Amino acid sequence: MFSEKSRKAGITFPKGFKAAGVKAGIKKSGNLDVALIYTEKEAAVAGVFTKNEVAAAPVLVDREYIKNGKAHAIVANAGCANACTGELGLKNAKEMAKLAAAELGCQPEDVLVSSTGIIGVNLPMDKMAAGIKAAAAELSVDGSMNAGEAIITTDTYSKACSLAVTIGGKEVRFGAIAKGSGMIQPDMATMLCYISTDANISSQLLQKALSDIVEISFNMISVDGDMSTNDTVFVLANGEAGNPEIKEGTKDYEIFYDTLKTICQELSKKIAADGEGATKFLTINVTGTKSFEDAKAIAMCIAKSPLVKTAFFGEDPNWGRVICAVGYAGVPMVPEKTVIKFGGIPVYANGLGAEFEEADLRAVMEKPDIVIDVEMGQGDAGATVWSCDLSYEYVKINGEYHT
Amino acid sequence: MFSEKSRKAGITFPKGFKAAGVKAGIKKSGNLDVALIYTEKEAAVAGVFTKNEVAAAPVLVDREYIKNGKAHAIVANAGCANACTGELGLKNAKEMAKLAAAELGCQPEDVLVSSTGIIGVNLPMDKMAAGIKAAAAELSVDGSMNAGEAIITTDTYSKACSLAVTIGGKEVRFGAIAKGSGMIQPDMATMLCYISTDANISSQLLQKALSDIVEISFNMISVDGDMSTNDTVFVLANGEAGNPEIKEGTKDYEIFYDTLKTICQELSKKIAADGEGATKFLTINVTGTKSFEDAKAIAMCIAKSPLVKTAFFGEDPNWGRVICAVGYAGVPMVPEKTVIKFGGIPVYANGLGAEFEEADLRAVMEKPDIVIDVEMGQGDAGATVWSCDLSYEYVKINGEYHT
Repeated sequence: MFSEKSRKAGITFPKGFKAAGVKAGIKKSGNLDVALIYTEKEAAVAGVFTKNEVAAAPVLVDREYIKNGKAHAIVANAGCANACTGELGLKNAKEMAKLAAAELGCQPEDVLVSSTGIIGVNLPMDKMAAGIKAAAAELSVDGSMNAGEAIITTDTYSKACSLAVTIGGKEVRFGAIAKGSGMIQPDMATMLCYISTDANISSQLLQKALSDIVEISFNMISVDGDMSTNDTVFVLANGEAGNPEIKEGTKDYEIFYDTLKTICQELSKKIAADGEGATKFLTINVTGTKSFEDAKAIAMCIAKSPLVKTAFFGEDPNWGRVICAVGYAGVPMVPEKTVIKFGGIPVYANGLGAEFEEADLRAVMEKPDIVIDVEMGQGDAGATVWSCDLSYEYVKINGEYHT
Repeated sequence: MFSEKSRKAGITFPKGFKAAGVKAGIKKSGNLDVALIYTEKEAAVAGVFTKNEVAAAPVLVDREYIKNGKAHAIVANAGCANACTGELGLKNAKEMAKLAAAELGCQPEDVLVSSTGIIGVNLPMDKMAAGIKAAAAELSVDGSMNAGEAIITTDTYSKACSLAVTIGGKEVRFGAIAKGSGMIQPDMATMLCYISTDANISSQLLQKALSDIVEISFNMISVDGDMSTNDTVFVLANGEAGNPEIKEGTKDYEIFYDTLKTICQELSKKIAADGEGATKFLTINVTGTKSFEDAKAIAMCIAKSPLVKTAFFGEDPNWGRVICAVGYAGVPMVPEKTVIKFGGIPVYANGLGAEFEEADLRAVMEKPDIVIDVEMGQGDAGATVWSCDLSYEYVKINGEYHT
């Protein structure tokens, strides 16, 4: 369902959405750096933002603009985060919306704004103005890939996906683009994710669905434990599919929710797998806890442990570091009741290292995609966190990414 | 006061203490790996241990043995942590105490036990028995350096210090050895620290002093955020100095407390500075908060951020990553009131990057020892955390340290 074709379609897969990405000269590399996403028909909108006390200017602006529950466009740039930029930063973020609105013939309050990149640098507004003008001129149903490329920073590729389902007898489509690679951690680091759908749904119900889903998708990934100033997820629903309005508590809502969840979890996994310098994608399933929160706390301790991360980079089945991380998660536990498996092979049980075939375990550790199961034996709750290893390349990327 | 001479004296500096370190063949490297510390005169004892739910066998044994408030000896090994070793591990830890007690002519309950090294491997008790016998035969007032060498693992050197003060008209001496390099984080990772003193003080008051001091010394360091299964700090006070018993609320106690604090903070800094792969020692002072806890939470977020750590490794004055970490510490803040300084030079103020002389800041960043000040402007409390950078070498050490 997430084929290369759907990746190309991305955010313009649902009816009525156009997108573009252009080179405005904001990224030092000269790559695409200004993205525009547009729906002529007004869309209901929902958003979730960073909980960082130091929120970037565009986040501050979006929190205001989103209040009316509707939007026509998203304008975004990479290369400069417009964070820690004071009054001028706020003015510039609003100016971005105003420039896009003028091109698109809508109100500035109907344009959402994002920036990602270096903190503490002001946006070059002359370049931005030219970029937005160019992007507006290039808007098309084939523009998703360029828009996706224009919002990435240290990502190795632009994340996108799309899906179609039937709701109320109509085909309802979803599309998305996302970026995020470093500073990845709940609650949603340097991550930007834009999701479009042609479903007919109110902004209130859309917000409820998104807020719930973020807790089991974007808030369940960790690359390095840092939470950025710019994290943003938007969903725009323009109703072009023509389905009867989706109401809470119905089968239609269930389908809508499950599809949005699939999109968000798929993008979450892609972001974790593309963590800066990552060579291993780690899926950490913690089960048998008394609550979701306990399971999440344990899974996050494992995901964030530099010792666990470097062990997986070294392809070393060092379960001692995993049980050690479990032990400091702040959740009471009984070591003798806990079982740890790597790739389905028990490595720790009954308070001791388990017996296993070395060759089998080596084969697991050599794979690029490894599942760590931790069974706590205390209850029926659980949680899954997606993460990656810690490599030389991570240190290189972040030691040499100079301000 | 922490001269090379005092380092040599180390734990045997106070009257009545002897030590030894021998090669028992437990470390793969063949280096010194069994340490013994002994006071013929019974010592009052205090201890603080890991809060990890997965505590190693020696920690479980020590928690029992320490209850009588007295001790004659510490026996320790490196190369094998005796953690996650079940019933056999407990039996082996008790056997270590018993073997040492037989050599020293004291009760097994008067011998404290530590192990550090790989998790999940059983102690080779034949080698241990021979090692303890050899160490007992070598006990001497010149044995501190060997004992210190015998407890290190990935440390680049053995940490030690000693101090003398006057209490109640008598010279009272303190000595210490410590190890710790990776898995360093509150509450006291793979850290072992043994402190000796010839002060006359009750075990109750000694425990009170130690418990208080740990909160502002060993619990204020972070190398990688991992908390080990084996962390232990012991203080043995044998009263050989002949001072009148130190009582709470007196000037004598104040001097004793301050000296013990100095020792613990000095060793904490040495451990942070010798963090695995560290090239920079970072002192993070957070001031102007409403409470010590708030300041500690902020300082720890900075200390643990891989993005901050790699920036300092790259000698990049990336204050954006620091303010970002401040923002997700869970402490309400006003970005415009916050000031960040590197080496005394303001880099962030009034919500913006500050103006500075590039050459001055470059000179700060190139130093091996950098002070980060964060002034929150909210109150009169503060906290200091000691940490280090994150380098290629950290990844190498922990990616290649195979089980």
